[in-house]
Amino acid sequence: MSKSLEFLTESLRRLPGVGPKSAQRMAFHLLQHDREGAAQLSRALYQAVDTVHHCAMCNTFSDTEVCDLCVDEARDRALLCVVETPADQLMIEQTLTYRGLYFVLMGRLSPLDGIGPKDLHLDKLVNRAADGVVQEVVLATNFTNEGEATAHYISEMLKARGLKVSRLARGVPVGGELEYVDAGTIARAMIDRRSA
Amino acid sequence: MSKSLEFLTESLRRLPGVGPKSAQRMAFHLLQHDREGAAQLSRALYQAVDTVHHCAMCNTFSDTEVCDLCVDEARDRALLCVVETPADQLMIEQTLTYRGLYFVLMGRLSPLDGIGPKDLHLDKLVNRAADGVVQEVVLATNFTNEGEATAHYISEMLKARGLKVSRLARGVPVGGELEYVDAGTIARAMIDRRSA
Repeated sequence: MSKSLEFLTESLRRLPGVGPKSAQRMAFHLLQHDREGAAQLSRALYQAVDTVHHCAMCNTFSDTEVCDLCVDEARDRALLCVVETPADQLMIEQTLTYRGLYFVLMGRLSPLDGIGPKDLHLDKLVNRAADGVVQEVVLATNFTNEGEATAHYISEMLKARGLKVSRLARGVPVGGELEYVDAGTIARAMIDRRSA
Repeated sequence: MSKSLEFLTESLRRLPGVGPKSAQRMAFHLLQHDREGAAQLSRALYQAVDTVHHCAMCNTFSDTEVCDLCVDEARDRALLCVVETPADQLMIEQTLTYRGLYFVLMGRLSPLDGIGPKDLHLDKLVNRAADGVVQEVVLATNFTNEGEATAHYISEMLKARGLKVSRLARGVPVGGELEYVDAGTIARAMIDRRSA
């Protein structure tokens, strides 16, 4: 096989979820049907590696030192929402229910993968939350075991510094039918029930 | 979101089988965990677009005018095997049962997708097969409807020029249990039965 093609196939395997067969199919497709797309992807990768950094305030990906959301004067600076990834942040933004700022962990505590508090730069979060302006930190990590552990760890750390900490509500999802919701979720919804 | 990140996510969608969520996940992964991989992929794409052409003899992807296999003096030049893709060619090579040359169609006849004989450059195949050295053309297109139609079309074309044309044998796969093989395959195996 062509050396350049082999190098391309091998490099495509660096993408998450792409095995040898998919990589080969992608390489053939690009070279046979979309060379313009291949050239564009090459430029996009080069540009992204070159210009994308972490926002000095919220730690998300940004082309500028501080991202657009963090400099937006319309946002409520007393609220700080902690999420695992930029994708989670986008989901919360789409709900239009939150007008504060964010801190993006870019991961979660995961001892099995060797990701501890230092790897997550939690000191950066503590410094950010203790700026004297932030009044409440909303923990919006995932409701998985690792996300819950991360939320618990951060909560203890921030409460020790006298900060108000909250967590997204757990309960039955909108449109959920009790018959098909798992028992753990119903149990939490029962414990956290609110006056109607 | 960062402009460079948006451009990268959008460009990753040019890859076959990659939707918006996968593209985002790939972009985040590369920027957070594998910037070296992203830079390598950028180089590989650029290099492939720049150097990979079609072999003048067999039409497969090649960095040189004629690919390594076509210049290999050890191959039997009287045999020409027609396949749809370089991946199919690799599979046949792995069987170690074929020592002739190849012609790679880079597709199949597919009227529904607007791919006719001209789009497949079948004239190139006819010229190649009619070089006076090739004695037999082995059709190894897929046994799908489109692959069969392609084989039939090529077969008629080459036979009209007096060439000997053969097709890979159909039948029960190695390890196949009759109970679980489809009736069409068993029917073909019965028609094509050979003396034991």
